[in-house]
Amino acid sequence: MIDTLLQTIEKAVPIDQTEKELIARLFREKKYKKGEYFLKEAEVCRQVGFMISGIMRYYINNDGEEKTYGFAKEFDFVCNNESFIPQNPSIQIIQALEDCKLLVISYTDLQTFYTALKNGERYGRLVLEQVFVQTLQGLNSFYTDSPELRYEKFVKEYPDLLQRIPQYYIASFVGVKPQSLSRIRKRNTRSD
Amino acid sequence: MIDTLLQTIEKAVPIDQTEKELIARLFREKKYKKGEYFLKEAEVCRQVGFMISGIMRYYINNDGEEKTYGFAKEFDFVCNNESFIPQNPSIQIIQALEDCKLLVISYTDLQTFYTALKNGERYGRLVLEQVFVQTLQGLNSFYTDSPELRYEKFVKEYPDLLQRIPQYYIASFVGVKPQSLSRIRKRNTRSD
Repeated sequence: MIDTLLQTIEKAVPIDQTEKELIARLFREKKYKKGEYFLKEAEVCRQVGFMISGIMRYYINNDGEEKTYGFAKEFDFVCNNESFIPQNPSIQIIQALEDCKLLVISYTDLQTFYTALKNGERYGRLVLEQVFVQTLQGLNSFYTDSPELRYEKFVKEYPDLLQRIPQYYIASFVGVKPQSLSRIRKRNTRSD
Repeated sequence: MIDTLLQTIEKAVPIDQTEKELIARLFREKKYKKGEYFLKEAEVCRQVGFMISGIMRYYINNDGEEKTYGFAKEFDFVCNNESFIPQNPSIQIIQALEDCKLLVISYTDLQTFYTALKNGERYGRLVLEQVFVQTLQGLNSFYTDSPELRYEKFVKEYPDLLQRIPQYYIASFVGVKPQSLSRIRKRNTRSD
């Protein structure tokens, strides 16, 4: 499992053998069964996860109505930065939609990762930049795009998730009721 | 002017004399007259600014209706990261609400800052973390808080801007028409 993570890091910055061994010690394997929570509402997010398998869903519970912000799948980092960075209670919830295998690192161990690796800070900055842009694009899309466009973007961004995620969650991500999603899907198929 | 920037950086990471001279070479002074644009719509954001004086406003133009996302004042960094990081055209507009003095660094010179300073990457990561959290909190507030709460937050976050910014822009930030802002202000004063 650790090799997948090391390869992902090495795509961005070089790491030597001693550093690889350190990374292997800083991360630990963790499993979440389908339905279990990576992060609950009002909890402080104390870990960053690297997804080996499975799917996690990010959502908020708005007086009983769920809004789905996005999904994490294989080789994605999973974390609620708004809670993790300042170590404040989370509004967002992160839940396993399938059985998931992850490598997780604690807040304290991540600080060690940043300072002990030659390129630790650089890797942190690069990942943060990427996540920052993705998060902003996701939020902007959530509030300004039409449901049709959001469905189109979902299909493009997560093609393999279409078959893996219940319709209910895709509708919640698109921002419509499940029956409206069926209409969007039909229109979308016709126009292909 | 450069001393203010150096002091701001030194609050987060140590920098030696040679590094200070490098920073002084990487940043250059730039002035914006009231009404001028730091970043226009559809332009790529090619610089990060450090505000020495004045106020900048972040907003989008939504079919003629402006939505104000926030303000930058003295000692703030000013940048649209969603455009700057991937070097993509911007949706957001950044405009001077007063005559502004800034120190600006180009995208390329910022990469030098990151790599040439001992703590360049660390400083980049720390600023990005701070800006990320602020941006997320700002966006969430924009879409979930009531106008009353947004006005309260504006007063708390930008107490000195109340007298400096035309009511029109405060109303646009709060998300109401200027006449509704007057009502909120009166209620707010009564409950103090």
